[in-house]
Amino acid sequence: MNRPEELIREIIKEKGKIKDVFFAACGGSLVDLYPGYYFLNKESETVHAHWLTAKEMIVSPSKFLNKNALVILCSHGGNTNETVTAAKLAIEKGAGVITMTHNPESVCAGESMNPVVYDWADAVNEKEKPQGIVMRILNELLSIQEASYKKYEAVRAGLEKADAIVRAAVKKVQNRTWLFAEAYSEEPYLYIMGSGASYSQAYGFAICSLQEMQWMDCCYLHSGEYFHGPFECTDEEHLYILMLGTGAAREMDERALKFLQKYAKKYEVIDAAELGINEIDESCSEYFCPMLFYAMSVAYRTALQNKRQHPLDMRRYMGVVEY
Amino acid sequence: MNRPEELIREIIKEKGKIKDVFFAACGGSLVDLYPGYYFLNKESETVHAHWLTAKEMIVSPSKFLNKNALVILCSHGGNTNETVTAAKLAIEKGAGVITMTHNPESVCAGESMNPVVYDWADAVNEKEKPQGIVMRILNELLSIQEASYKKYEAVRAGLEKADAIVRAAVKKVQNRTWLFAEAYSEEPYLYIMGSGASYSQAYGFAICSLQEMQWMDCCYLHSGEYFHGPFECTDEEHLYILMLGTGAAREMDERALKFLQKYAKKYEVIDAAELGINEIDESCSEYFCPMLFYAMSVAYRTALQNKRQHPLDMRRYMGVVEY
Repeated sequence: MNRPEELIREIIKEKGKIKDVFFAACGGSLVDLYPGYYFLNKESETVHAHWLTAKEMIVSPSKFLNKNALVILCSHGGNTNETVTAAKLAIEKGAGVITMTHNPESVCAGESMNPVVYDWADAVNEKEKPQGIVMRILNELLSIQEASYKKYEAVRAGLEKADAIVRAAVKKVQNRTWLFAEAYSEEPYLYIMGSGASYSQAYGFAICSLQEMQWMDCCYLHSGEYFHGPFECTDEEHLYILMLGTGAAREMDERALKFLQKYAKKYEVIDAAELGINEIDESCSEYFCPMLFYAMSVAYRTALQNKRQHPLDMRRYMGVVEY
Repeated sequence: MNRPEELIREIIKEKGKIKDVFFAACGGSLVDLYPGYYFLNKESETVHAHWLTAKEMIVSPSKFLNKNALVILCSHGGNTNETVTAAKLAIEKGAGVITMTHNPESVCAGESMNPVVYDWADAVNEKEKPQGIVMRILNELLSIQEASYKKYEAVRAGLEKADAIVRAAVKKVQNRTWLFAEAYSEEPYLYIMGSGASYSQAYGFAICSLQEMQWMDCCYLHSGEYFHGPFECTDEEHLYILMLGTGAAREMDERALKFLQKYAKKYEVIDAAELGINEIDESCSEYFCPMLFYAMSVAYRTALQNKRQHPLDMRRYMGVVEY
């Protein structure tokens, strides 16, 4: 397997300066790329970041998709049509690519894709999974390319600490997830909120964990945008899951919490600070919250699966019919 | 009132080259800025575009928010706290700003904001409303800054044609909106899909027209992402609204339509092509679809209001309580 740090160093050596990074994938894999996108948007003074579903990169490729660009892709199964096509387009345009996949036999694991093949077993360390790999690539990129970048050691230390934090949090919430499922397994509809880097996990929790894996209707919302429309649905009957991240974006989540405390009755709070993320340096802990929230979404969906007796792997269309 | 074309020309004269354009607002106003963002992403070779809720620009300002940047803001009422603060931050960072508002007495209409004050009456031409104003600004920007930009006349012609197209479409769908409301006014939730520049209207239809104005539960989806999770909820009981745009992104919407035709029973198709958008040159008609879809969302929500007897302007929180 290619080491992410070496891959990015080689790409920089070959290309010189990276000016644009495109993050392209589909569904859950796209979710995994968002924290890196948010990180670059906030931290970088040399790199512009783009985050989009792979098909949209194909139908409307940016003019910055060129030899100065790096395209980071992810496909768990490794043969997702849109992602493979996007990778080929990127190569054709002269961009550098790094492709993450779980499947060593897949198209995405082909040599020209610069693959990072990750393991997905329970025991695998967070720094070896897509969100961790992305942070490793970007931390290296900024440290090489930007003299003013000061977070290299803090991010490295965060990558070392993340796995234990996530594992402890999963244990800590076990009983809460059962109580949640007990209370809400029949709920007709719910809203899931987050902001900053963790907006991605509101999206992923909704479209992957609930819509795909539980056929449960729900909607993802940005905690900041909540106050500009969606909050009018809030009352004591509506169910919310609110993810409280860290960093400067947390203010938006806390504002939503205060509102829910006043006007709602059914809401589940998943607070990264309470779940140990502050063991990571505060200069970068916000970029690790999504990793933690992903594990939380797995914990909650597993409790729902068991209560509802709806297997997480049951599909009526994906991989079953043609579309 | 400032003319958008003159404003952008003056800003370019003062600043030289614009390297980044930030689109920042909240809720429905943020929706209005998305087509411009999508347009720049696809068409520009000199400008990087950023689109984000105003508060997120405040809590995690990009390092590209500087004197080479232009920030386009919109606040209908003109005093939205986050938008005003974002505008002030932009000015402090040395960026150029252009602020759209409906309220000539508001903070956003202050001289330092470079305001474009728009009218919102029924008779107002689409080119004088936010989406039209944004396209006018960007069309001017690219024509000045990029010798290779070839769509100036096509976009100008599109801006002239848009209003009549939208008005004709509103008449054309009147009866359909009544039938939709008759059939689905009691529906417990629905999904709204779009892609490309029109993804913004799936978002706006959901959070403004339904969640805010009708307290109706719903979720916005990207037509391309639909196949990577959300489609597992689809069956004959679930209700969908699908917006079919034009341009290269249409392929994603058509794929979703084909799927709905096969596996769903309750779905409303709003097709920009059928509703006259092709009178605009095909090189740029996709950027005008969101304008048309916004008018459609107004038509549908009005029919729902009448059937459900839930006034569009009724609020339980916004402007009513402190938050």
